[in-house]
Amino acid sequence: MFQSFDAPTSPDQGPPRLAKLREEMKRTGIDAFLVPKSDRFQGEYVAPADERLAWLTGFTGSAGFAIVTPEIAGVFVDGRYRLQVRAQVADVFTPVDWPETKPGPWMSENLGAAAVIGFDPWLHTMDEIAAIRKALGSDQTLAATDNLIDRVWEDRPAPPQGAARAHPIEFAGERSGDKRDRMAKALQDAGQKAAVITLPDSICWLLNIRGSDFPRNPVVHAFAILHDSGRVSLFSDPAKFEALGPDPNIDLLPWGAFSDALSKLDGPVRVDRKTAPVAVSDVLEQAGVTVHWNDDPCILPKACKNEAELQGMRDAHLTDAVAMVEFLAWLDREAPKGGLTEIAAATKLEELRRVSNGLQDISFETISGAGPNGAIIHYRVTEDTNRAIQPGELYLVDSGGQYLNGTTDITRTIVVGQPTEEQRDCYTRVLQGMIALSATRFPKGLAGRDLDALARAALWRAGFDYDHGTGHGVGAYLSVHEGPQRISRVSDEPLQPGMIVSNEPGYYRPGAFGIRIENLIVVQEAAEMGDGRRQYDFETLTYVPLDRRLIDTEQLAPWEVDWLDRYHDDVRQRLSGRISVEAQSWFDAATAPLRLQDRYSPSGM
Amino acid sequence: MFQSFDAPTSPDQGPPRLAKLREEMKRTGIDAFLVPKSDRFQGEYVAPADERLAWLTGFTGSAGFAIVTPEIAGVFVDGRYRLQVRAQVADVFTPVDWPETKPGPWMSENLGAAAVIGFDPWLHTMDEIAAIRKALGSDQTLAATDNLIDRVWEDRPAPPQGAARAHPIEFAGERSGDKRDRMAKALQDAGQKAAVITLPDSICWLLNIRGSDFPRNPVVHAFAILHDSGRVSLFSDPAKFEALGPDPNIDLLPWGAFSDALSKLDGPVRVDRKTAPVAVSDVLEQAGVTVHWNDDPCILPKACKNEAELQGMRDAHLTDAVAMVEFLAWLDREAPKGGLTEIAAATKLEELRRVSNGLQDISFETISGAGPNGAIIHYRVTEDTNRAIQPGELYLVDSGGQYLNGTTDITRTIVVGQPTEEQRDCYTRVLQGMIALSATRFPKGLAGRDLDALARAALWRAGFDYDHGTGHGVGAYLSVHEGPQRISRVSDEPLQPGMIVSNEPGYYRPGAFGIRIENLIVVQEAAEMGDGRRQYDFETLTYVPLDRRLIDTEQLAPWEVDWLDRYHDDVRQRLSGRISVEAQSWFDAATAPLRLQDRYSPSGM
Repeated sequence: MFQSFDAPTSPDQGPPRLAKLREEMKRTGIDAFLVPKSDRFQGEYVAPADERLAWLTGFTGSAGFAIVTPEIAGVFVDGRYRLQVRAQVADVFTPVDWPETKPGPWMSENLGAAAVIGFDPWLHTMDEIAAIRKALGSDQTLAATDNLIDRVWEDRPAPPQGAARAHPIEFAGERSGDKRDRMAKALQDAGQKAAVITLPDSICWLLNIRGSDFPRNPVVHAFAILHDSGRVSLFSDPAKFEALGPDPNIDLLPWGAFSDALSKLDGPVRVDRKTAPVAVSDVLEQAGVTVHWNDDPCILPKACKNEAELQGMRDAHLTDAVAMVEFLAWLDREAPKGGLTEIAAATKLEELRRVSNGLQDISFETISGAGPNGAIIHYRVTEDTNRAIQPGELYLVDSGGQYLNGTTDITRTIVVGQPTEEQRDCYTRVLQGMIALSATRFPKGLAGRDLDALARAALWRAGFDYDHGTGHGVGAYLSVHEGPQRISRVSDEPLQPGMIVSNEPGYYRPGAFGIRIENLIVVQEAAEMGDGRRQYDFETLTYVPLDRRLIDTEQLAPWEVDWLDRYHDDVRQRLSGRISVEAQSWFDAATAPLRLQDRYSPSGM
Repeated sequence: MFQSFDAPTSPDQGPPRLAKLREEMKRTGIDAFLVPKSDRFQGEYVAPADERLAWLTGFTGSAGFAIVTPEIAGVFVDGRYRLQVRAQVADVFTPVDWPETKPGPWMSENLGAAAVIGFDPWLHTMDEIAAIRKALGSDQTLAATDNLIDRVWEDRPAPPQGAARAHPIEFAGERSGDKRDRMAKALQDAGQKAAVITLPDSICWLLNIRGSDFPRNPVVHAFAILHDSGRVSLFSDPAKFEALGPDPNIDLLPWGAFSDALSKLDGPVRVDRKTAPVAVSDVLEQAGVTVHWNDDPCILPKACKNEAELQGMRDAHLTDAVAMVEFLAWLDREAPKGGLTEIAAATKLEELRRVSNGLQDISFETISGAGPNGAIIHYRVTEDTNRAIQPGELYLVDSGGQYLNGTTDITRTIVVGQPTEEQRDCYTRVLQGMIALSATRFPKGLAGRDLDALARAALWRAGFDYDHGTGHGVGAYLSVHEGPQRISRVSDEPLQPGMIVSNEPGYYRPGAFGIRIENLIVVQEAAEMGDGRRQYDFETLTYVPLDRRLIDTEQLAPWEVDWLDRYHDDVRQRLSGRISVEAQSWFDAATAPLRLQDRYSPSGM
């Protein structure tokens, strides 16, 4: 079982650890110390050795940070974690509502005029530090230091030692050497001698490798310098790469050699201020190397999947769809009997995904929420919160798998027994949003911001909305969340062919129910339709039926009904012959066309 | 008759006038001279005395400019005018495709390395001049001069002498003194001593006056300085204001006093770099007055209509709707007989608008296009292009009126006889776009860019689109085009209550037909719908039926049918008792609900 349902850690260990840290701050002559959740790689998941925030405070949320002063220890968390943080941290810690309260102003308020604020320059990006510095008082200073937590963390786990594996060309679609030549050419065109790459998924994409350093994301912890010759200096634990054998164009070096290599570079050197540790530019600038602030050069090409990556994603989604169909059919048989819990469901789903033998990992912690728990957008079920799925309730399951050929992310909401009219109305509006985005064509040059309204309009017309983006980028057997594209009112990144985004509108009625429907879709060139315009549209990668009992066909436009019937017909054809005997009749019913007369029968069933 | 249908001017006079201008350039020691279409007020319409571009070149389009050198005289026009310019100018002029070719690069190419480019600093904004300067060679210089055209234009008409009139408080809704105090307070808060206001519609809004200096826009040509005391210095032809009587807080001064008054100001002074003549900041800077580059302070408050302005707009639209209904009923009677021309239709429409006795002017040149002419987005019918409306053709009419209580702008597309399935499909998609925007609710803070896709999605799904924005701001008995808000993929201006925008999606099949449907809508607070969100939605101001024969009800969603039936029911109630006997039966049929069974009859009729 990949997922654990353990209840969060106990707060007891916080106070002594905080005391130790404060001693260390005093010894170092520092008035405050920053403790972020993130590690050197700015990823969503961190290895046990990097769980500094959880070790110190007990808070285990996916985002947040602490600022410790001699008098106060603030734990900054966003709206998702306001309750959790209070349950997890001892009262020596002070929860702070973030981003409403920002670290800069908070420090100006809680620190003396001449305070020295210490931070580990490997754990913060240039953008973060610049934002904090801007908000400080004129006499307050930010001082880079080694990590004070590491000094006092006696039983700190060893850094991960996961072996790197080759990512086969059949899935990667482009030889690493060709990628490096492409990137090197881009550096030459920009007059840059080298690029510093600190994102593990960028490095794995560039070198066609995958890793196993920590759960959920199959990446290798490493830093890289890509030279304008196409040569790569790779910094990590060389032992992890032994199985791969040598590559004449890759110099494999230990972690310790990174700073020295940076200081020996001959500029200009490209650094990403949104993702690179500020230590990188500090070293470069101290060595007199010119820094060009540009995005990590791998991010955009990695986001635009090639045909081999897309075919791998289609295959992975087919494998995943079989597990999802078996799961939904099983749920439909078992749930009405009563007593089926959120944990039992999540466990069964992972079990069914493992049947394919292809499952490397789940792509994130399964969100398995019944009734009111479904309304908690980032719900993670634990033994403490686990509840049985009651008849008449909606059940929301947001999950995904990591397969060698691709990464999946799917959300389905189903009803146990008969839905209420209100549940059907809300589900139908969410569905209309999902269809509107899936079915749209759009002119080249548009960004996620320009399309976000399509997924919300049916909810907006009822005065509803959802407080999250509509879609995020997805990697190909990489991170389930990747940039730069998004479907969101804040995303100006133009959509390009090969970009994969999730399409996941939702509606949440606190204390009652939550609804979310998520398919992955990929941008592609659209067929020319007669007036000479070259547009894009979306291919859908997710092949799992939608719950007909929750669809009020009377609310749908004819073209929406057509889209749904075509979708279910496509699902039926792709999965035919792969469904178990027990699930077959459920699957046939679930993928049958919505009959036209549906729209005039009162229940729509 | 306000509108004239004269064919464009003849090219004959261009060559001798160009020769005179070049002599004047030589005498002045200038290697090039800029001749813009715009006047000092940067408006859409200019007075005869300001038609310098047309006088010199013969080109009468609504946008464009000329750059004259000793060897070449380029006339820069956009896609709308590529054909017209060739018909209107003599071959001593060289049409240039703008904006593909920009003036800066064109001059670097067509002028010597040390060329001196002359321009009239009263006719160009700071943004324009800065953009040109950026593109020039390092030794090329821009030199402000008096206007060389005016020197050689012997029979130049006198500047307009239209009398200013008071705009009654019942329509303005806020006393001018209160507006001035509000604006003065804003200046004080910004630490600004004064604001220079050069837009006639801003001045008319601030002072609650209207004018008659030139057609279509009921504004007064004037410049103003608003002091942080609330006092206004007004520069124009004092004779135009005699009828208004004196105002103790307004100093009425002649045009000639403007520059002197600017140079005597005590800064900082607020100037709008997008609208103010560059001469304004030149004078200020030469006098050592600090300039703050901010928007004209009247633009945003003018855009957010108060309740009196909105009620005036509703009343004006009711008056206008009666004329439109009579027109559409008449057209339906007359057009099928054959031989009815575009000019005859436009003439009849203006005649019907005059019946109310309230019509002050039309709000722009009526676009009256039958068949293929309807596909020309900015078509203006002349004796040369006039054609009869044939049975089976679509007829597009985009028009509006200026009434004392408001400004209207409406587009309807109707079929003469029976439409083809293709015409009905395209019309229905345009209609779906118009409905989607009219019916939407949306979160506060969104801009036109965030909603534009809603009006296009039904067309996009068929691979179609339209090459113009979806909507523009509209004034209240002011300019039919006003900023800052727009419904457009390039508009980041947040929509606010009281902002009026047009909602005018379209579809154009070159050589065949054009479709556009336009209602005016106004942003308002939406009723709270149960999940505590405060959203905005739109009130519709246009009360004229849509052509049922062009609506394929089978393509519509139930909620779209409901919206249409509610709209036609509202139109029927508002206009009841105001329709003539001849038009009544047409009106009753036109506003009858779309019967549910419509959607199952093959033709949808």
